[in-house]
Amino acid sequence: MKTLNIYINYFKKHLNELDLNREPKTLYDPIKYGLGVGGKRFRPALILLLCDFYGGNLDDAIPAALGIELFHNFTLFHDDIMDKAQLRRGKETVVAKYGLNTALLAGDTLFAIAYSMVNKTNEKHLNRILEEFTNTATKVCEGQQLDMDYETQINVTKNDYEKMIYLKTAVLIASSMKIGAIIGNCPANDENLIYDIGISLGLAFQLQDDYFDCFGNENTFGKKIGGDIVDAKKTFLYVSACESINNETERKYFYDLYNNKNIDNEEKIKKIITIYKNLNIDKKTIKQIDYHIMEAKDVIHQLSIDNNKKDLISQVIDDISNRNK
Amino acid sequence: MKTLNIYINYFKKHLNELDLNREPKTLYDPIKYGLGVGGKRFRPALILLLCDFYGGNLDDAIPAALGIELFHNFTLFHDDIMDKAQLRRGKETVVAKYGLNTALLAGDTLFAIAYSMVNKTNEKHLNRILEEFTNTATKVCEGQQLDMDYETQINVTKNDYEKMIYLKTAVLIASSMKIGAIIGNCPANDENLIYDIGISLGLAFQLQDDYFDCFGNENTFGKKIGGDIVDAKKTFLYVSACESINNETERKYFYDLYNNKNIDNEEKIKKIITIYKNLNIDKKTIKQIDYHIMEAKDVIHQLSIDNNKKDLISQVIDDISNRNK
Repeated sequence: MKTLNIYINYFKKHLNELDLNREPKTLYDPIKYGLGVGGKRFRPALILLLCDFYGGNLDDAIPAALGIELFHNFTLFHDDIMDKAQLRRGKETVVAKYGLNTALLAGDTLFAIAYSMVNKTNEKHLNRILEEFTNTATKVCEGQQLDMDYETQINVTKNDYEKMIYLKTAVLIASSMKIGAIIGNCPANDENLIYDIGISLGLAFQLQDDYFDCFGNENTFGKKIGGDIVDAKKTFLYVSACESINNETERKYFYDLYNNKNIDNEEKIKKIITIYKNLNIDKKTIKQIDYHIMEAKDVIHQLSIDNNKKDLISQVIDDISNRNK
Repeated sequence: MKTLNIYINYFKKHLNELDLNREPKTLYDPIKYGLGVGGKRFRPALILLLCDFYGGNLDDAIPAALGIELFHNFTLFHDDIMDKAQLRRGKETVVAKYGLNTALLAGDTLFAIAYSMVNKTNEKHLNRILEEFTNTATKVCEGQQLDMDYETQINVTKNDYEKMIYLKTAVLIASSMKIGAIIGNCPANDENLIYDIGISLGLAFQLQDDYFDCFGNENTFGKKIGGDIVDAKKTFLYVSACESINNETERKYFYDLYNNKNIDNEEKIKKIITIYKNLNIDKKTIKQIDYHIMEAKDVIHQLSIDNNKKDLISQVIDDISNRNK
């Protein structure tokens, strides 16, 4: 992430300066722990990059960048409660380490602190950034609800799936990029183009995440392979497989196997991955990821910025969507 | 609540107009249900009253009033998860009716919607209201954490207890009053006085709630008597009893009994209430409630408003603190 790294490092410096040595420690220690588990910090870096590319002052974008990163972490604290997740990035989740009540409340507090950051945005942009941030927060919750609904819903179409990841994943990335552009005082027309690029990038990013869950390298992925299969998550791979199986008996077999939570995990993962490979789901997923990346890149040339900046955005998209690994 | 009723009704009209017919229904139906369980709506009414008393336009205060009420309900959704509460105001809690994950996410969404309301405050006051609202939200979370910490901490002093209810209950009431005053363009000096009145009122309100839990009428209280005793909540009654028992053996007996969660509930409630009565904890609590009300009323005369408005605020304090029941 060569281009993005400079912004990531600039952001991390500000994140580290965030004073969370507050009382009660039973609340703020879990928050510090959860934030310390890490993450790529690419969302806030996108805010800074876009602000910079449109000629804005980086420091004007820091409050929103902190707000977005803290908000993202709040959603992880709560998602891990809902998913009963034990590990995140190879470390214990907040809920696993501190229990349900503390993880719940630490998340709530982080959401409030996220707003205390966003609120520091300069007055010129405050109204628009608040509106964007709040709409995004609501949509992320709606997406998470769809994700939960799909867990007990066998028949999930590609459309259903795309609606879910649009809300749960893509909107936050698109919104980060748009917020950066707004603070950089970009022309009105570019705002929407930037948002569209972010949506396509976000869809590609989520599909790549789904792909890695089955076909990734456990060491670089940071999670155990097959977690989505064990949890019967409705991923792109699942909905694609459903659409690819024409034979009713075979589809019934696949449905039952995937949604069976009482089967041995290793056996289930092995069987499902074999089905995916036989149906070429791996290749189909990569094709779809490439489609979304192409979609994103197609919009870049319409932006009003210099060509070298357009090239850099294109590189950043490749980096974030992990297509270069 | 004669004086407050006009504001409560005005607020309810706006609350009812809030459009929550959104998708996914699995998320918004629980939100509508939870909001529909009711509540006195006295916090938003306080915002409207203070705005009105300082000569402001009621409609300017509606966004903040909706924000505060939605925020308050978000905290109830999550508190009920943490307390594993089955009933609220005689109806099933959101978590009891819809399960943990949905109650968690419905709460998160409500917090975001609360901000979408507050964000509509007119530009002149937006910055200050956002700051006040966000600080308050953080403090309420800190107070809830202390409340949880105390559940497993036997030795809780009156100071500890007051710090907890200050954060968990009083700040939101004080902040509501201050927000109303700010939107009504009150003089700077009055802002802090109003806040101080709100803190004293909030402390009285919480103590009254603690009192009703043991000595209230089940029908008007809306909850089963003794709930705090069953959950070993560290209430004003508990900390007062601890301070009143001088004999070490007796205190040890009281500690052990109160913090024993394996004993028959009815027996525990009966025994604890008997101890409270023998120690005159009921009378001591009422004395402390009256002290906080007096504290609140002492500040009223310093306000810059007309005397008849001062009298009305005094009445409202009596109404909210339930001392007239």
